[in-house]
Amino acid sequence: MRIGILAIGNELTGGSTQDTNSSFISRELNAEGWSVSTIMVSGDDEDIIGKGLDYLMALSDAVIVTGGLGPTSDDITTASIAKAFGLNLYTDETVLNQMKDRFKKYRTKWISNNTKQAMFPEGAEIIPNPAGTACGFSLKKNGKIVTVIPGVPSEAKKMFSTGVIPLLKRNSGEAKQYMVSKTIKLFGVTEAGIDQMLSDVDLKITGVSIGFYPNFPENHIVITSKNLTESAAEETLKIAERRIEGKLQKYIFGYDNDTLEGIVASLLTNRALTLSVAESCTGGLITDRLTNIPGSSVFFDRGVVVYSNDSKTDLLGVPSEILNNFGAVSEETAVLMAEGVRKLGRTDLGLATTGIAGPTGGTTQKPVGTVFIALTDGENTICRNFLFGGKRKRIKKISSQWALEMLRRFLIGNSLND
Amino acid sequence: MRIGILAIGNELTGGSTQDTNSSFISRELNAEGWSVSTIMVSGDDEDIIGKGLDYLMALSDAVIVTGGLGPTSDDITTASIAKAFGLNLYTDETVLNQMKDRFKKYRTKWISNNTKQAMFPEGAEIIPNPAGTACGFSLKKNGKIVTVIPGVPSEAKKMFSTGVIPLLKRNSGEAKQYMVSKTIKLFGVTEAGIDQMLSDVDLKITGVSIGFYPNFPENHIVITSKNLTESAAEETLKIAERRIEGKLQKYIFGYDNDTLEGIVASLLTNRALTLSVAESCTGGLITDRLTNIPGSSVFFDRGVVVYSNDSKTDLLGVPSEILNNFGAVSEETAVLMAEGVRKLGRTDLGLATTGIAGPTGGTTQKPVGTVFIALTDGENTICRNFLFGGKRKRIKKISSQWALEMLRRFLIGNSLND
Repeated sequence: MRIGILAIGNELTGGSTQDTNSSFISRELNAEGWSVSTIMVSGDDEDIIGKGLDYLMALSDAVIVTGGLGPTSDDITTASIAKAFGLNLYTDETVLNQMKDRFKKYRTKWISNNTKQAMFPEGAEIIPNPAGTACGFSLKKNGKIVTVIPGVPSEAKKMFSTGVIPLLKRNSGEAKQYMVSKTIKLFGVTEAGIDQMLSDVDLKITGVSIGFYPNFPENHIVITSKNLTESAAEETLKIAERRIEGKLQKYIFGYDNDTLEGIVASLLTNRALTLSVAESCTGGLITDRLTNIPGSSVFFDRGVVVYSNDSKTDLLGVPSEILNNFGAVSEETAVLMAEGVRKLGRTDLGLATTGIAGPTGGTTQKPVGTVFIALTDGENTICRNFLFGGKRKRIKKISSQWALEMLRRFLIGNSLND
Repeated sequence: MRIGILAIGNELTGGSTQDTNSSFISRELNAEGWSVSTIMVSGDDEDIIGKGLDYLMALSDAVIVTGGLGPTSDDITTASIAKAFGLNLYTDETVLNQMKDRFKKYRTKWISNNTKQAMFPEGAEIIPNPAGTACGFSLKKNGKIVTVIPGVPSEAKKMFSTGVIPLLKRNSGEAKQYMVSKTIKLFGVTEAGIDQMLSDVDLKITGVSIGFYPNFPENHIVITSKNLTESAAEETLKIAERRIEGKLQKYIFGYDNDTLEGIVASLLTNRALTLSVAESCTGGLITDRLTNIPGSSVFFDRGVVVYSNDSKTDLLGVPSEILNNFGAVSEETAVLMAEGVRKLGRTDLGLATTGIAGPTGGTTQKPVGTVFIALTDGENTICRNFLFGGKRKRIKKISSQWALEMLRRFLIGNSLND
């Protein structure tokens, strides 16, 4: 079944409020195995509502309308839809009495404007609102169904599940389609690189669709599999997943809700290894990310943010001759920072970053974006040299990501030579 | 001018990604005095893209398209629009060479698939992308203009301002309505508190509208003023602003693009004061925020993230008896951390946080969300005790916000007794 969504409200086209209902509804419809033909957002305008409804009806088997069911004069959804369908409005006495009872219960004064919320197009089936005063309704035309619910997100969500979904199921007459999906999360490879590496992989599997989503600094691949049984859907999903992993394993750090810091935290915890971190250009972002993970105190002992040269010498023992001869942003300094913080924290591992986040401080030899990241286990130390594009916050972000990724590769590979 | 918006991407109709570009674009268009006819969201489907474009063109003077300009095979926006307009595609050599240069600069391997991003419909005017590889373009038809930009929000925002707005202005030829707006940023007061404090303030000023936007942990008030001349618009804006400031001055930390960390950074720089930071529960978030500000090395010397008890003793000299008798999360520890890190960094000020971010570690006396924040100038030390609600990341965020706010209040008041 293909479904259109129409969200109504001047606050939406005016940009003061983000329409979040349509995204929620799309997600739920897709989870049911249906697809969304088009989402439309229009203002409280009778003509535009009518045209939008026509457009979506032509394209879809059903249309879900949200918003514009309030008691004030700018809420015209019910009247506009009645007009578009050539129907009169009537007052539903049951709904009216329920509203009056509700007002009494919450000791709110009844105002005659509220009567408007008990008016519906003739022939409408009413969708109760368990969370507010504005009931929804549904209408049928040429075998297609239109359902209308309020725009207030908490009410829309509840009524969508309890009212709209059962109505759509009753009207679809389709055999249930099961859907499963999985997100594969990658880092260290470009979108075009992924595309090329997958170019000779057969991903045309019946019922399976694959999407690519850049999510800086990561790339995500979402596999969605639909089928008549859940096990069939999962089986084809697994086939697609294995084919993708066969080509891209090196860059995959996690799945679904995994975060890189969460994966690193699990690896450190499981291997009972402890970590200290020395940050210059990342300014605390690495330890901020690691300490977002509950239980990080098990593996994380301490971090130092060594912004000044003095602090690198005082806290980490980086000799001032090294800082003078090679610079604070150099492989020599990064290595000594990692080794210094490991000693300072008396931990198994030491991780360090130093670089030029900009916008100033760049030179011809070391332009803005130059970053050195070092990791030591006390026996061996590796250091990688990067040149990142973008602005200050972007450079900090990708530097923290590479630092965590170097840690992850070490922890899964058990060696500092990768 | 009435403008239609078309956002393209299977991730949007699939519900895995919220379309935030359309709301941003609507807000900006309204700020220019234009209105949005309809927002449409469609999947990567040639037929639906063509139909949607037709619909929006009929309803609008201009259409803005976002998304589907990536290098992978599922990105078909350019080809779909060319087809809808009956135009062929050509490869733009200038764009192609710029892309190749960019790849060379960032040492990324050039892959032939990227060539796709240098292809445009014949007759298109190219909209440069200052932040990525995907350029946009515009086309004209029957006096109406269609502009196309990428869907990645950071790129879409930049190109909308630098590329799309000037193009629309050039093509509109309308009598200009001048509009000015200002965002007032508050912290330390609830939305209901703001509402109550403003209840006896007259904010009904001709041409002025006021919106309230919670933006955790801040609250933002946006004043918008429209008028026939710029000076008239600015004058009424100023009246509203003064009335709001009259009631809420204490909570206002900044305006428009200000950030709390940016304001604190300016105050420290202007007063030539230096800072060291010791973080326990915030885990590096305070120094991460401060070092997001260009030039922060002028005032920021060093930070320590002291997660273990040992690290608090080693680095900051907090005696183990204090940690044992009062606990790591206590006023006594917070004060000694602030004083200790000030000495360690030999700076003017020392700032420290210690608390329980959860989900575990809470007790009846010190539940999850208990946080102590201390600030010292070497003569006096203040410490505040908070109990925050919410989960781990939320507690870290609001703790870092209060730490920066305590610093701001000290820096504007020149005293530690506020």
